Formats: sequence, structure tokens, C-alpha cells
Amino acid sequence: LDYQHVQVPFEITLWIMLASLAKIGFHLYNKLPSVVPESCLLIFVGLIMGGIIYGLNDRSPPVMDSDIFFLYLLPPIVLDAGYFMPSRPFFENIGTILLYAVVGTIWNVFGIGFSLYGICQVKAFRLQDVSLLHNLLFGSLIAAVDPVAVLAVFEEIHVNEKLHILVFGESLLNDAVTVVLYKLFRSFCEMPTIKSVDVFAGVGKFFVVGLGGVLVGLSFGFTAAFTTRFTKDIRVIEPLFVFLYSYLSYLTAEMFHLSGIVAIISCAMGMKRYVEANISLKSHTTVKYFMKMWSSVSDTLIFIFLGVSTIGENHEWNWPYICFTVIFCLIWRALGVLVLTFFVNRFHVNTITSKDQFIIAYGGLRGAICFSLVFLLPDFHRKKLFIAATTVVILFTVFIQGMTIRPLVDLLAVKRKRESAPTVGEQIHIRFLDHLLAGIEDISGHWGQYYWKDKLEYFNSKYLQKILLREYDQPKSSIVLLYEKLERKHAIELAQAGQLGHGPAHPSFLSSDRTVITDQKLEDTPNPDVLDNMQEILARNLYRIRRTGPAYNRHTLPGDSEPTEHAKEILILRHKSL
Amino acid sequence: LDYQHVQVPFEITLWIMLASLAKIGFHLYNKLPSVVPESCLLIFVGLIMGGIIYGLNDRSPPVMDSDIFFLYLLPPIVLDAGYFMPSRPFFENIGTILLYAVVGTIWNVFGIGFSLYGICQVKAFRLQDVSLLHNLLFGSLIAAVDPVAVLAVFEEIHVNEKLHILVFGESLLNDAVTVVLYKLFRSFCEMPTIKSVDVFAGVGKFFVVGLGGVLVGLSFGFTAAFTTRFTKDIRVIEPLFVFLYSYLSYLTAEMFHLSGIVAIISCAMGMKRYVEANISLKSHTTVKYFMKMWSSVSDTLIFIFLGVSTIGENHEWNWPYICFTVIFCLIWRALGVLVLTFFVNRFHVNTITSKDQFIIAYGGLRGAICFSLVFLLPDFHRKKLFIAATTVVILFTVFIQGMTIRPLVDLLAVKRKRESAPTVGEQIHIRFLDHLLAGIEDISGHWGQYYWKDKLEYFNSKYLQKILLREYDQPKSSIVLLYEKLERKHAIELAQAGQLGHGPAHPSFLSSDRTVITDQKLEDTPNPDVLDNMQEILARNLYRIRRTGPAYNRHTLPGDSEPTEHAKEILILRHKSL
Repeated sequence: LDYQHVQVPFEITLWIMLASLAKIGFHLYNKLPSVVPESCLLIFVGLIMGGIIYGLNDRSPPVMDSDIFFLYLLPPIVLDAGYFMPSRPFFENIGTILLYAVVGTIWNVFGIGFSLYGICQVKAFRLQDVSLLHNLLFGSLIAAVDPVAVLAVFEEIHVNEKLHILVFGESLLNDAVTVVLYKLFRSFCEMPTIKSVDVFAGVGKFFVVGLGGVLVGLSFGFTAAFTTRFTKDIRVIEPLFVFLYSYLSYLTAEMFHLSGIVAIISCAMGMKRYVEANISLKSHTTVKYFMKMWSSVSDTLIFIFLGVSTIGENHEWNWPYICFTVIFCLIWRALGVLVLTFFVNRFHVNTITSKDQFIIAYGGLRGAICFSLVFLLPDFHRKKLFIAATTVVILFTVFIQGMTIRPLVDLLAVKRKRESAPTVGEQIHIRFLDHLLAGIEDISGHWGQYYWKDKLEYFNSKYLQKILLREYDQPKSSIVLLYEKLERKHAIELAQAGQLGHGPAHPSFLSSDRTVITDQKLEDTPNPDVLDNMQEILARNLYRIRRTGPAYNRHTLPGDSEPTEHAKEILILRHKSL
Repeated sequence: LDYQHVQVPFEITLWIMLASLAKIGFHLYNKLPSVVPESCLLIFVGLIMGGIIYGLNDRSPPVMDSDIFFLYLLPPIVLDAGYFMPSRPFFENIGTILLYAVVGTIWNVFGIGFSLYGICQVKAFRLQDVSLLHNLLFGSLIAAVDPVAVLAVFEEIHVNEKLHILVFGESLLNDAVTVVLYKLFRSFCEMPTIKSVDVFAGVGKFFVVGLGGVLVGLSFGFTAAFTTRFTKDIRVIEPLFVFLYSYLSYLTAEMFHLSGIVAIISCAMGMKRYVEANISLKSHTTVKYFMKMWSSVSDTLIFIFLGVSTIGENHEWNWPYICFTVIFCLIWRALGVLVLTFFVNRFHVNTITSKDQFIIAYGGLRGAICFSLVFLLPDFHRKKLFIAATTVVILFTVFIQGMTIRPLVDLLAVKRKRESAPTVGEQIHIRFLDHLLAGIEDISGHWGQYYWKDKLEYFNSKYLQKILLREYDQPKSSIVLLYEKLERKHAIELAQAGQLGHGPAHPSFLSSDRTVITDQKLEDTPNPDVLDNMQEILARNLYRIRRTGPAYNRHTLPGDSEPTEHAKEILILRHKSL
């Protein structure tokens, strides 16, 4: 036995296998996921696993490595989020999202930090050695809403699109703020004195980290789109580029201390449109499938690891600090949402209702990002207290808030996502209004949202498409493409309903060259495949005829003799012949 | 800049990117790949890269790590080979393949080993310190034909199916022999005395290593099939299981010193049929796509690394030893093929022609497996000589033989693969003959190939399918399924040719529930997708109308004014209004 040799890949594969099997297990019992969110179940599995490891080894199970989390587990989830981001609601609410993500997070950091510092001044709690800076540092890591946890819960409760994008968008974009504040306070903790210059530099960094991330992401995204122009002859590696370039954008951003999350989201949103047009349909299915698969496995692993890491002796328990942390997290978030929404509602016609505000405040779940950040803290004597407080906040938000948010949404009758897709009529009207408004803004000289969208679209069709799209030289009108698609769908449905009215395609007809062959069709023609299939079917049926042959003799009725009996008969015959 | 932090994933991603871009680059110039095999081009790229690294750093570039090769690069290629293995020709020729793989490889190992030992006895060559055991050890690593190299070359020359499967099957299955002999001689080298018991134990190991690999592979394969029975609710992680279980089978086999290659091939061949039936069509597309993608990237990386590793100071040059190695490799392989084929042809009606024999002997390419094994050798004073000899043999076979095999195939007019798929009539006749022969064998009591195939099929439909297939309870007759598939294809073609005769599907019709809805259909109905598409199309067109609107005024003719002019016009209007 040579376990050493294969240990690393073997254990990684086993963890992934465990995660996948856990996922299957939950879905086998349909009632469970409808009551308890999957994230809770997974943490629970992790707790049990951690307990077993702790019981067997008698020492703390390994905690989730922050490097593994940030370099390998987080990127797939964020990539998936960025690639499938509904761009219309996102850009429509970008102002509100940024307000929540930037101002809201800063508000929370300082609110939680200062009020915890206040608690530390109470002598009875024995916390006077925790300085203001340490409290602010702790605030900076505990304040940020976690995209992984938010996604896991909000995907299951189906609130309306705007509410969803507000919470989810905030959780993604606050990364830039968290990175800056966390690093700022950490370096302040190690500095002897802090000059006002440093503070201003910190404020300037917000823009560098955020906009730098966008820039890195977009440049990689466009390069990816450009690369897929040349993959026509080797379709099979097309999906790879989508993953490679987005991952590179994340790593590059991290390397330059920019926001990796912002970078990978910009990369995915920037490339999507062009890549989709360049790569083949099957490649695109593969891209989508693998993205979903990877993100769902990463997500599962993160929650299991969260559970495993909770068990052990990493914690220092201090009731007041931990309880007040939970309370302050709730209070400051609620206050922040109230105040910010007040301002947002003053400038918008389509206001955020108080029910929505409640859900936004209540949906501020914390997760693995806080957890990884707290383990990355430099060693100091109260680190274990911070770890304990972070763990409790995460478990509280994921379990208590995560499990009660669905009943609360039902109870408050929060506006849900509409079940049916909007009709074509609605779509046309929305789009028509967009263009009307763009026109009005254009003429009135008010450079608003519609104006910029218009300009961007123009820039896109005039320059970007020419550079990034392969088929630009001979574009088929998109209305024709849609018509073809609908025709194809319709035909399939007719065929399935048996209403086609023609005979089935004759094989020779299938292989004959037609002048109307398009790329699309060539891809959809699995000719040897069909024949393989046919061959198998014919084989099985011929075989059956042969095997059931003896049943049609004078002594047995059709179907009353078992195949085993035939086998016996043949065996007897053979014995005789031998 | 924090490069340390992201170094590992960043460099891995960059290597993969380089490999993919190299592949794109070669395919941009269509003439190049038709003359030079891709493997040669990739080694050439590697040589250049290695030269650059060597020139810049002034020390040998890093050689390909054997662990990385065996644990990460080789499995995807072998998995792909096993999953897409044409099972009919493989099992029809399994006897011949095993003969080549086992007896042929042993013949080559001892032939090359003993004759090189003979060369070492010539005093003028100054090689007397290389012992017989070391020569045999070297023989055991240099004798094995490499599946990666064979695949890369034979995929491009399109010889007939039987010839292809003989060379390719041998290159895969000789792994068991290579593993046993290599480890045997390596341990003999370290033993003070060798007892005859050890030699017999070595012979017994062949069966353990080979059959053990098959057993491990099949058990993981069936587990994989069984697992996919339960993935109906989470289609998105289905492809994962195919990869996880096959990789686990490889690692487990390696862990127990069995043949990993044999294990992963049995796993893939065992699971394929059931997994395909259980998972959704899109999952299957993803599986196939990703397998091809991974294997093609691994393959590319292996050849690039081969090139990079060649450069440097790892070599000890000894003309006679290296030249004779190349010569003996050629001679012993040719002799082996001749002798073995003589026996094979005596027992078969469908003989292997002398042209085929030549190509089998000539197609015995060596590759990265030898290269990794030679680096795994324990340190002794002549290791660098062995490395040099191995490198030369690999480069000779890949470049000289790989580049000349295509012209030789043309010159000898070797029977090619038939271009068209066999007609349905042929298929039916072949299958019919199979069953006829099975019946004849059954009655005559001769337990041959057809008899066992029949039994296996019976066992499969009686037991395995019930356990491993999800849909077994309500199976649709496969002839009905095929009919549906053909109908669908036909309908699509009609739609594409515009001969459908019905109007396009109305959106409301698309979303209405129909009683004939099958799983298949539900998956093929991207309703929100279609609407999204529509929305975009309508948007673009409406937009165009809006933008080209001013062209239809009294002063300009339609189409004679550029959009930029409109922009100018609007700008002027806006300036006025401001």
C-alpha cells in the first residue's frame, strides 16, 4: 500500500465526492430541503464530520485553509454569479447597490467596531485589553455580507428580482470595501503611529481597488472574447478559455491587491455576450453546465468545511462580547438599511417598500469570507475570541436567519418573483419605453441611464463587435435566427406529438447532402451516433426474438416460460449432444 | 505585488493557457498539421521554451515531475481513450491485443535488455560497469509502446479500425506488464541476491496487477452507474460522478500497486453504457466535451513538457549505447511482431497482412511514460546515460517515425478506415450473424466469443440493468426511442429547409402544457431563454429603426447618411437646447 504517493489528489477527490453525495442525499428526501436550507444541512454534516475527526484523533480537526478558500473555492462561485447575473436589474439598480455596498459596509464596520469598543470599556466584562483598532479590524471582517451564504438562501426563497439583486449585488460588490478596510486596519494595528496621510491614502484606495478590479476583469474578458474568434477548428477547447481567462483575471487582481471578486464578475459580464456568439452551441452548454457544477460543488465544500472547522479548541468564549457582536450586527445593519433606503427612496419613483427593507436587513447573512479572514489575522492574544465570535455570528445568521427567512417572506407576503416569463408583448413594451426614454434623454440633454446604455450599445456594435465577434462579416439578421430557432422547436414538438404527417426520415435521406446545411445543422447531425444507436436497438430486439423463440412451440403458451427455463432446455440439449 | 500568494494556480493556469494557445496557433495555418504531426510541433515548442529558460537562467529548466505526469496528466488521456474505445473491434481482437501487450512486451524487454548487455561487454565502448540487471531495468522502461504518442499519431493517419485497435490496445494494456517488470527489476537491483522464489512471485504478479486493475475499475464503474440512478433532481452534478469515480479507480489502483491505466479503462468501459442511459442529454454532452477537452490539454502539456525537459544538463552522451538502443528497439519490435503475428494468423481466418504488420511494428512509438519512468529511477552513476538514451529514442520515434508513417501508409496503400458509416443493412447483417453464431456455438457446445457475449448480454439485461439503470421499471422500447429521435431530426431538417408548412410556434403555444411532455422535451424547452433572445433581437431592431429614423426625412435618401451624422445632428440639437 502506497498511500503517501496518491494522498493529495485522493483526499481532494474524496472530499468532492462527499460533497456530491451529500447533495444527492438531501435531494432524495424531498421534504427536507423545503424546510431547512441546504447550507444549514451541509454545515450540520460538517459538524458531524468534525466531531468524528475530533473524537478519533483527540485534537482539533484541520480548519479550512484560507488560501484554499480564496484561491480555489471562491472563484467558481463568483464566476457563476457573474456569468449568470441578470444584467438588466443589476444595471438598473447599480446606484442603490453601490450605495449599500460601499456606504452601508463602511457604516456597519465603524458602527460595530465603535460600539464593541464601548462594550470593552465595561470593567465587568474583562475585555479592556481589546483596543479600538482591533475592534475596528474585527468590525471590518464581520460587517460584510457574504455572497455564498446569500446565494444559497435567496436561491431557495424566490423573492422578487429587485430585492434579490439588491442583497446579492451588495454582497458581491462590498468585497472591494472589505478588502480595503481589512488591510488598512491590519496594517494600522502593526504601525506604531498613524498619520492622517495614511487615512487619506486608505480612502483613495477604495477607488483603486474597485475600479482596478473592473479594469483587470474587463481586459481579460475582452481578451477571452477575442481568443474565441479563432477556435472554429478546435471547438473542443473553447470552454477552457472561458474558465482560464476568468480565473486569470481573479488571480491577477489578487496579485495586485485589487478586488478579485469584482474582477472576475466584470470579466464574466464583459465576455459573456461575445463568447456566446463565437463558440458552438455544445461548447456553450458545456460552459454553463460546468460553471453550475463547479460552483455548486465549491459551495457545498465551503459549508461542509465551515462545519468541520467549527469543532475544536480554537475558541475563547466570552459571553458578553459574543452576544453583543450578534446584537450589533443585527442593529447596525437594520439602521444602515433604513437610513440608506430613506435617501434612495427620495430619488426614485419605484421605491423600496418597508417589507423589502426588512428582508434586505434580515438577509444580511455572514459566511465563509468572514471565517477565512478571521483566520488570516496576525497572531495576537485575543484572536481566539474573534474566531469564536465570528463562528457564532455565522452560525446564527445561517441557521436562525436562514431558516426563518422563508416563513417570514411568506408571512409578510413579500412580493415574489413572477412564476411565468414575461410575455413578448410586455418585453416589447419595456424595450420600446427604453428607447423612447433614451431618445427623450438625448434630446433634453439629460445624460441619464438610458442615454449611456444607448451610447454603449452604439459603441458595441460599431467597434467591439467588429473586433470580438467571428461572424461579424456575414451577420444573419437576428430576427431570422430567432425564427429558425422557433421553427426548429415547433418541429420537434410536432414530431413528439406525432403530428408531423410525413414518414420518418429515411437513413439515406439523412446522409444526403443538402444545400441548406448550416454550421448549426452539421453539429446537430450525429450520423454515426444514430447508426450506433440503431445497431444496438436492432441487436437487442433480434436477440430477444432469438431468445424467446422457443416459447412459441406446441407445449408452452407465449410468455409463460421464463428465460431461465430456456437456458435449462438448451443445457439439456447440449449435454445430450456431448 | 504579491506573487508568492497566487504563484501555484497562476503558473498552472498560464501553462494550460500556453498549451491551448499553441493548439489554436497550429490550427490557424491549415497546411502545417497535415504535414507534421501535432505532437512534433508541440515538442518543438517545448524545445524552444526550454532553450529560452535555459538561456535566461543559465541552468537546466525544470524537468516534468513524474508525480505530476502520473497523477494529473495521464489519467484524463486514458479516461478519454477508455470511454470512447470502440468496444466491438476491441473485444473481437482482445486475444491478439493481449498477446502483443503481454508476450510482445516481455519479448521486447528481455530482447533489448540482453542485447544491450552484449554491447556493454565490448571493451572499446567503456560500458562494462552497466550490469545485466540495469540493462534489463532499462529495457523494461524503454520497451513499452506509449498510448499518448500512439494516439496522437494514429488519430491523424486514419488507418483501418483493426490495425488501429491493435496498436492502440497494445499500448494501453502493456501498462500492467511494464509496471510489474519495472518494479521487479528495480527491487532486484537493490537486493543483494535474487532467489528463484522472487522470480516466480514476479510472474504471479502479472495476473494480480492486471486482473486487480480490471476488478478495481469495474467496481468503481458500477458504483458510478449506481450513483447516477439518484441524480434526477440535481442534473447539474451528474458529469462530476463520471470524472470522480474514474479518477478514484485510477488512484486506488495506483495505491495498491495495480495497473492504474487498466483500472481507469475498465471503469470507463464498464460505466459508459449505464451512465449514458441515466444522465440527461446535456450532462452527457458536457461529459463528452470535458473529457475531450481535458485529454487534449493534457496531451498538449505532456508534449510541451517533453520538449522543455529535453534541454539541459541531465544527459551523459555515449554514442554506441544510444545508437544501439535505437536500433535494438526497432529490431526487437519488428521481430516480435513478425513472430507473434505468425501464430495469430494460424488461428484466425481474418489474417493480419504483411503491410499491417509493418505498420504495427513501425507504429511502436515511445513517449512520456518512458520518460517519467527513467526519471523515477533510483540514483546510480549511469542514470544520466539512461536519460539520454530514453530522450533520443522518444525523439527518434516521435519525429522520424511519427512524421514518416503517414507517407508510408500512403505508399503501401494500407487499408484505410472507411469514410462512410456502414449502412443499416450491413449493421443488421453483422448483428444477425452474431446471433446466428451465438446460437450455433450454444448448440454445438463450443464456448467461444459469441457464446460469452450472449451470456454477458443476458446477465446484463437480467441483473445489471435492474440495479444500475434508473428507468428500468418503465422502459420504452428502444426502437420507439430511435423512431422518436429520427422524427425529431427529420422535423428539424424540414424546419431548416422551410418546408414545414405550419406557421412558426406561437409563444403561448410554446408555454402551454401538453400531455406528451417527456423529460427530453422539458430539457429542450429553454423558454426564458427564447424570450431573452427575442427581447434582445427586438431591442436591436427597434433600436435600429430609432437610429435610422432620421434618414427617412425629406432631405436625405434612405441609407445615404451615416449614423455618425445623426449623432452629430443630435449633438447640434442638444447644444442648441443647452
